[in-house]
Amino acid sequence: MNKRYQDDGLALHTDLYQINMAETYWNDGIHDKKAVFELYFRKLPFGNGYAVFAGLERIVNYLQNFKFTDSDIDYLRNEVGYEEDFLAYLQEMTFTGTVFSMKEGELVFGNEPILRVEASLAQAQIIETALLNIVNYQTLIATKASRIKQVVGEEAAMEFGSRRAQEMDAAIWGTRAAFIGGFDGTSNVRAGKMFGIPVSGTHAHALVQTYKDEYIAFHKYAERHEDCVFLVDTYDTLKSGVPTAIKVAKELGNRINFIGIRLDSGDLAYLSKEARKMLDDAGFPQAKIIASNDLDEYTIMNLKAEGAQIDSWGIGTKLITAFDQAALGAVYKLVSIENEQGEMEDTIKISGNPEKVTTPGLKRVYRIINKANGKAEGDYIAMEDENPQQEKRLKMFHPVHTFLSKFVTNFEAKELHEKIFTDGEFIYHLPEIKDIQQYVKENLQLLWKEYKRSLNPEEYPVDLSQACWDNKMKNIEEVWEKVKKVDA
Amino acid sequence: MNKRYQDDGLALHTDLYQINMAETYWNDGIHDKKAVFELYFRKLPFGNGYAVFAGLERIVNYLQNFKFTDSDIDYLRNEVGYEEDFLAYLQEMTFTGTVFSMKEGELVFGNEPILRVEASLAQAQIIETALLNIVNYQTLIATKASRIKQVVGEEAAMEFGSRRAQEMDAAIWGTRAAFIGGFDGTSNVRAGKMFGIPVSGTHAHALVQTYKDEYIAFHKYAERHEDCVFLVDTYDTLKSGVPTAIKVAKELGNRINFIGIRLDSGDLAYLSKEARKMLDDAGFPQAKIIASNDLDEYTIMNLKAEGAQIDSWGIGTKLITAFDQAALGAVYKLVSIENEQGEMEDTIKISGNPEKVTTPGLKRVYRIINKANGKAEGDYIAMEDENPQQEKRLKMFHPVHTFLSKFVTNFEAKELHEKIFTDGEFIYHLPEIKDIQQYVKENLQLLWKEYKRSLNPEEYPVDLSQACWDNKMKNIEEVWEKVKKVDA
Repeated sequence: MNKRYQDDGLALHTDLYQINMAETYWNDGIHDKKAVFELYFRKLPFGNGYAVFAGLERIVNYLQNFKFTDSDIDYLRNEVGYEEDFLAYLQEMTFTGTVFSMKEGELVFGNEPILRVEASLAQAQIIETALLNIVNYQTLIATKASRIKQVVGEEAAMEFGSRRAQEMDAAIWGTRAAFIGGFDGTSNVRAGKMFGIPVSGTHAHALVQTYKDEYIAFHKYAERHEDCVFLVDTYDTLKSGVPTAIKVAKELGNRINFIGIRLDSGDLAYLSKEARKMLDDAGFPQAKIIASNDLDEYTIMNLKAEGAQIDSWGIGTKLITAFDQAALGAVYKLVSIENEQGEMEDTIKISGNPEKVTTPGLKRVYRIINKANGKAEGDYIAMEDENPQQEKRLKMFHPVHTFLSKFVTNFEAKELHEKIFTDGEFIYHLPEIKDIQQYVKENLQLLWKEYKRSLNPEEYPVDLSQACWDNKMKNIEEVWEKVKKVDA
Repeated sequence: MNKRYQDDGLALHTDLYQINMAETYWNDGIHDKKAVFELYFRKLPFGNGYAVFAGLERIVNYLQNFKFTDSDIDYLRNEVGYEEDFLAYLQEMTFTGTVFSMKEGELVFGNEPILRVEASLAQAQIIETALLNIVNYQTLIATKASRIKQVVGEEAAMEFGSRRAQEMDAAIWGTRAAFIGGFDGTSNVRAGKMFGIPVSGTHAHALVQTYKDEYIAFHKYAERHEDCVFLVDTYDTLKSGVPTAIKVAKELGNRINFIGIRLDSGDLAYLSKEARKMLDDAGFPQAKIIASNDLDEYTIMNLKAEGAQIDSWGIGTKLITAFDQAALGAVYKLVSIENEQGEMEDTIKISGNPEKVTTPGLKRVYRIINKANGKAEGDYIAMEDENPQQEKRLKMFHPVHTFLSKFVTNFEAKELHEKIFTDGEFIYHLPEIKDIQQYVKENLQLLWKEYKRSLNPEEYPVDLSQACWDNKMKNIEEVWEKVKKVDA
């Protein structure tokens, strides 16, 4: 196993069992049967009341370029031991399926299908790992960013986490997700280039260490940079950093645009209040105070409650790694499959953990919006062939505690799935990232405040249609009949 | 900012302030002054007693290919607004510095330099972000993997986390780090291909759902795969899955190699013990039980304490995201810089947080090994020009509580830094990954058990030489003199 192969494609970015299953289907001649998988998570992260979907752009790119390279095939032949007939089949594979997906920036909740893949059984299986890898991370970060931005409010929230991100892709795609979730910019230049996200940054402690003197360092920085933010905590914030920043700003006057100072350590509440006074007294009431150092929604809320005088927040580790819950548990489950007669048949997975039982069949998700107040009443999961848009009066009931129900009238049922690929052809238009960010903002207006608070939000209703529920019960029944036979 | 640029290089994978500082130095004519930065973390992750360094191979690749592409320069010109003279300088930049580093697989502790970069001030600054991004994640995962493997022991530990990893690079490089830390294999085929790590996997619930029947599904799988592990929890583990696996194994007899079964949900302690009995009673005492489902060192230790009958452990989310501590806080600090006379001068960063004060000057790290018992007495950080290998009697004292000290005699002082690049030329030989894994195993033999237990390990000594400590105190003194002047 010593030989190394060139990393020249992403088709092998999957779990081995996916390829083993594809091989089983291929051997059995059912690899081209149509299969339908749905991608969803069960539980919202961070105890938040909603999640923000991100990842579609990366998925589109992955599916458009899906192809096993020659070196992939060589590896599978020489090191894993697949045989030539199956390898020949793999080598020809491209993605020829149909994909429905929510838009990036859609607010999404537990147990509702975010993506639906309708493809040949073998293809649909092999792409599972990459799709989950992408959606799980990007949705997690977009959600975390949205939580943080809700607390930050109108002030600026900047993504500063690249050095602590979980490798390079996370730094880049996490930054993109953070922007979608409402962040205003990033320090990562590559992310700025790739996605058109505003970049920001001034200087680090190393600049001051290089000149061994804050006064000289600030002057040198200002010689080449009109917009100046001085980092003031290299030696001693209040005794040295802030007074020196003020001195330099006074000396240079109109020759620079003195934006303000940055604090990166110590007690940010105390230091920002003292620094604010010093700046005001020196005639710089417009100078901003930028703060960073292990911030997240909890520390920011506390700093604000303490009256910290901070105008811009640099957020790193806790955002880019989703530190308090570093993974989202989205899954990808088979809900329907073509039978021998060429008809689609629903399928289910039962589990000792009731929340892991899947909901069979092709489904659509509708956001039920009350026309009287413009607020969302909940989401409604219906079978593919239902049309709640034509209903006058909709019964919504809790998918576990079914006695909890309500009737909704005077509503708009907004369907949340877009068609992205038709038989392998890309037919969607990927929006600009600023429009995705804007879409999140608009969507948040649909939710009552109770669903948006960061601590113990109300549970937003995600309900099954009666047909959907009946179909699920029927499928459970059929499986139990079968299990009983084995057990008997 | 709508225009998108091709993502064709990693030189821009940095924070904007790094480029701003480079521009300041360039403008001031000091960009080619030699600067020395050290990379280290302050605190061990997970409350572990040691960390396992990983990331060097990726860093070598990054530095060898370091180059701003045309589209990078276009972006910096058009969107960030740098001027032509500075852009011309950036466009010519390659990495021409010298790098010392610990080997991958080295056991490493808080506050000791893992890497030392000696390069032009501008270059050394721009590469900071990528180096930290790589080392922080890979070292975190290698350490987590080593912790888990210590609990797993001789049984197999498999990396199964790709779908929950923080984007694709984390899945790949995290898998490599897990292997370095002692894991036996992975489900990720791309990681297997790139690094020569053994891959494993059988089938998922979807296979059973596809055939709507475990009996048929297992038979179909066995038609093409001689080595069989059957996943038994799609419907009901003990009533359906295990009996069906046994039935199929009996029917197929010698035509397959019935390796065993896999459990992926439910109470793994109870289910594994019941399944073990069923397999033994059916005449398959050699059949293995493979378990997965949100495992980490704590759950594994508990399952073992309960007498779970598990032979192989599949570990996903908690490993690949380092779920209980998703970031390592390594930093990269300037310790010395060339002055106007062309001499190297040490430099320091002071902080209100005492643990954030840097240790100035070029340093080497030695592992002090007691020749009498072959165990490590601690690590010893000395100035570049010291040679503890020539000392007969070494005084080691705690770098904070200096009264804690001991004298060591009859020791070997093993230097931990290797030279990787000399003036931009790569002069090191990257070892095979299996050799790195082996190196970790051997290194762990050097540590007393007290440093290796997963809960509350003893603190391994990392001490400064007297010269190193004196130099630090002198530098602190000088800075305080300067701060007092500003304050006065």
